[in-house]
Amino acid sequence: MESESRANMVRSAAALISERGASGTSFSDVLADSGAPRGSIYHHFPEGKRQLTLEAMDLTAGRVVAYLRSGTGTTPREVLDHFVAIWRLVVVASNGTKGCAIAGVAVDADESAASLIAAARDIFRSWSTLLAEQLRNVGVPAPRARSVAVTALAAMEGALILCRTESDVAPLDLVVDELRTLVR
Amino acid sequence: MESESRANMVRSAAALISERGASGTSFSDVLADSGAPRGSIYHHFPEGKRQLTLEAMDLTAGRVVAYLRSGTGTTPREVLDHFVAIWRLVVVASNGTKGCAIAGVAVDADESAASLIAAARDIFRSWSTLLAEQLRNVGVPAPRARSVAVTALAAMEGALILCRTESDVAPLDLVVDELRTLVR
Repeated sequence: MESESRANMVRSAAALISERGASGTSFSDVLADSGAPRGSIYHHFPEGKRQLTLEAMDLTAGRVVAYLRSGTGTTPREVLDHFVAIWRLVVVASNGTKGCAIAGVAVDADESAASLIAAARDIFRSWSTLLAEQLRNVGVPAPRARSVAVTALAAMEGALILCRTESDVAPLDLVVDELRTLVR
Repeated sequence: MESESRANMVRSAAALISERGASGTSFSDVLADSGAPRGSIYHHFPEGKRQLTLEAMDLTAGRVVAYLRSGTGTTPREVLDHFVAIWRLVVVASNGTKGCAIAGVAVDADESAASLIAAARDIFRSWSTLLAEQLRNVGVPAPRARSVAVTALAAMEGALILCRTESDVAPLDLVVDELRTLVR
């Protein structure tokens, strides 16, 4: 029960950061969203908001990696489509209000939050490394695979921002079409 | 003198939002950065932080449009290189700490900030429309021009996020190389 309340807070934090950024997400927001009692914050997260933010990032990263590893693409196009599909679901399910929690930290964090920026860097690297590996596995030469993977990650993250402003998944769909031409 | 102090505050707000997002930028930060006296905030911006944020967005948008219009590319590749060059300067000059203030608003703003999200949408549209026009002017067919322009905008915005986490311009350079292949 106690650990369930803790897990709910991390899930709420991840969802809220993906909607309004890390600076825009307060402890009060997380309490309201998760229904956790106020006293539970420093009980569960003695190091404060940074600890909660790092755990929310880890939760997001883990979900994305598990999803990516579930992919069974046999062509570069299928691999790219699978990479983007999880984000497409996020945009459609939220009517364009949710994006990527890791970007929500990277855009917000100032110099005092070096540990958050470093965590975001490691997560982005793990995603592009995994995507490059999957592209190589379906025949894309190694140097191209890395370059296409980083470009796909950047284009996907930027498209999520455009989807937010348009309240529409169209920018992501358009970008995916163009990404496919990179591996044709 | 009075208008100079006001303009300094808008410039500071634009710079700070590009570094730490809109939620992460407080009036106090803007006062400290611009050196404006505390009383000047509600004198100059009676509608509060949203007014200052909108003016900072307008300043950024105007600078980018003026820069884009100064381009004299004669090939699709030159047009794309020029589109990205202003952001490359921002990243290099700030050692990767600064990105795009419009993204810093779009990622941060929650549902209560519909006017900010709408302003971000209009600015992104104006940039991609202008880039598409410049691509058409050098021979890219209209439907391709729009698709490449939106993709270039998305990839550039996402690359700026990766540059922040890497404290390095390398992700942007890599993405530009891939974008070039879209218009080859």
